[in-house]
Amino acid sequence: LKAGEEAPPPPVVHYHMNNVTTTADPIANRESILILTPLARFYQEYWDNLLALTYPHELISLGFIVPKGREGNAATAQLQERIKKTQAGTNKKRFASITILRQDEEPPLQSQAESERHAMSAQKERRAAMSRARNALLFTTLGPTTSWVLWLDSDIIETPPSLIQDLASYDKPIIVPNCFQRYYNKDKEAMDVRPYDFNSWIDSPTAQNLAAKMGPDDILLEGYAEIATYRSLMAYMADPRGDPKQIVSLDGVGGTALLVKADVHRDGAMFPAFPFYHLIETEGFAKMGKRLGWGSWGLPNYFVYHYNE
Amino acid sequence: LKAGEEAPPPPVVHYHMNNVTTTADPIANRESILILTPLARFYQEYWDNLLALTYPHELISLGFIVPKGREGNAATAQLQERIKKTQAGTNKKRFASITILRQDEEPPLQSQAESERHAMSAQKERRAAMSRARNALLFTTLGPTTSWVLWLDSDIIETPPSLIQDLASYDKPIIVPNCFQRYYNKDKEAMDVRPYDFNSWIDSPTAQNLAAKMGPDDILLEGYAEIATYRSLMAYMADPRGDPKQIVSLDGVGGTALLVKADVHRDGAMFPAFPFYHLIETEGFAKMGKRLGWGSWGLPNYFVYHYNE
Ligand SMILES: Nc1nc2c(ncn2[C@@H]2O[C@H](COP(=O)(O)OP(=O)(O)O)[C@@H](O)[C@H]2O)c(=O)[nH]1
Ligand SMILES: Nc1nc2c(ncn2[C@@H]2O[C@H](COP(=O)(O)OP(=O)(O)O)[C@@H](O)[C@H]2O)c(=O)[nH]1
Ligand SMILES: [Mn+2]
Ligand SMILES: [Mn+2]
Repeated sequence: LKAGEEAPPPPVVHYHMNNVTTTADPIANRESILILTPLARFYQEYWDNLLALTYPHELISLGFIVPKGREGNAATAQLQERIKKTQAGTNKKRFASITILRQDEEPPLQSQAESERHAMSAQKERRAAMSRARNALLFTTLGPTTSWVLWLDSDIIETPPSLIQDLASYDKPIIVPNCFQRYYNKDKEAMDVRPYDFNSWIDSPTAQNLAAKMGPDDILLEGYAEIATYRSLMAYMADPRGDPKQIVSLDGVGGTALLVKADVHRDGAMFPAFPFYHLIETEGFAKMGKRLGWGSWGLPNYFVYHYNE
Repeated sequence: LKAGEEAPPPPVVHYHMNNVTTTADPIANRESILILTPLARFYQEYWDNLLALTYPHELISLGFIVPKGREGNAATAQLQERIKKTQAGTNKKRFASITILRQDEEPPLQSQAESERHAMSAQKERRAAMSRARNALLFTTLGPTTSWVLWLDSDIIETPPSLIQDLASYDKPIIVPNCFQRYYNKDKEAMDVRPYDFNSWIDSPTAQNLAAKMGPDDILLEGYAEIATYRSLMAYMADPRGDPKQIVSLDGVGGTALLVKADVHRDGAMFPAFPFYHLIETEGFAKMGKRLGWGSWGLPNYFVYHYNE
């Protein structure tokens, strides 16, 4: 400061939370959205898909959390290179702001091959670590003016460009599309699709009974032959010729792509890293939402696609 | 923008979480602290006490959440008047930043008399509303560089000026002083002190058994003659001639003054507005901390004082 100059006073900000709307027409109402991505690996297709979203980019903030270690370093470098171009002052499609958090912990599994990640024995520790990463990202990036939070995994490589508007149009507290995967079907000798995420489901009496008999620290996982839960999985409700606007009420949700009204998080809904009603991470989040009075919904015939290793 | 000028690129920020330390010597390590206050009424003595804290004010950010309605309007006006002076550019003791959130809801109880607030029947609804207010404040103000969060109620009117350093020196995830109240003791014809906050306690087999027999939505409240829990209350462990450095491990904590390592919140620990192990709000928070691996501690002989209506 020069002589006679006063230091600028530090920021004092005053927010009226009833000015932060969350409506079925978020573009007309200029609603801010925070896209949160836990990112262990960078995929160019994810970035391209993100840039292609037609929601006004000046209303979108991005938040990433990247694990410590060699893989995390590589992912950060790739991400920063893309950000440099995207956020250039000359780019009209740049985003409102971007935050990158580097974790001080390595992921519990060094190797991230799909088969290993999905081994049932590894799931509890892995999903607890994912919960902590999601919470750290959420708690440090959610602001007073955020209307919506879109959780989007870094390996979601294809969504409709109108993803945000489409999901928001249902005006639901928590809403999840159906996460599929493209693959080469050898029998048909053609590209095909198959379900990927089994965490979006409607509860069943069988699952309730299984849970009732479990120890307090046990979790009930979905999508494993070892435990038949007889839950109704949204993955299997898909009908490519069905109504894309069909909507179902859910008890568990997956987090590969997941739109949440920011008020749900502000009320305290987070991703439990501990068994919560024998559920963990995104499935536990849906249950916690319900305990706070916020329901979860799914779109069986509205698809997003996961990378295929 | 003038011709030929480029718009400034929007902020891209990159945080390394292992640079955010949380140590027993937070001043030496220049650790940032966020003081969070749910504020339904403004007390001059609270503000004077806050200003007297000797922790470097440039490392302190303040966050307030104020309810909607007439009382909230009055409290906001008083707060803003004090802030104007305190944050003046000429004031060397000003704080790093201040955020005020105005809720879009009125408190469930219009009248806030101590006797009414504390009626057992009103507690569940009231403490659920307090939980939501605390969570909204926490989720929207916690930043990536915050090391500590100090919860401080607006009616805490007297603490040691070294409160933050003193509590931090124990290097505990969650630590709570003993919250007392000054009053005129008619028998002694002199000012005296008495316990105020009964939410800091060590669990008992009786309380565990009571909880085990409760319905899933029941909560076990502390400090009510109607339910004898036989928990060990920190309020009754106080010994004015005892060691001020005595520390005990706790299972429930009160929130009138409460120091929390920011990582505890980042892991997902919040204030449950629903019964969590039959506990709610700050008591539920301690339990959630424990589920995430973070213990709670109390200082029976280190006092802060609550306003006396
Ligand atoms: N920050 C962080 N992100 C991770 C970690 N492990 C996985 N991820 C990311 O979290 C998301 C989900 O993980 P992924 O392994 O794809 O889960 P799956 O598809 O359900 O098997 C992806 O975006 C990953 O890049 C981790 O330890 N830390
Ligand atoms: N934002 C907000 N703050 C509140 C509300 N009700 C109480 N408070 C504040 O929350 C703190 C605790 O409430 P108080 O009524 O003093 O609780 P008690 O001392 O435990 O009976 C105080 O700082 C109050 O000013 C509310 O509805 N909204
Ligand atoms: Mn994945
Ligand atoms: Mn009080």
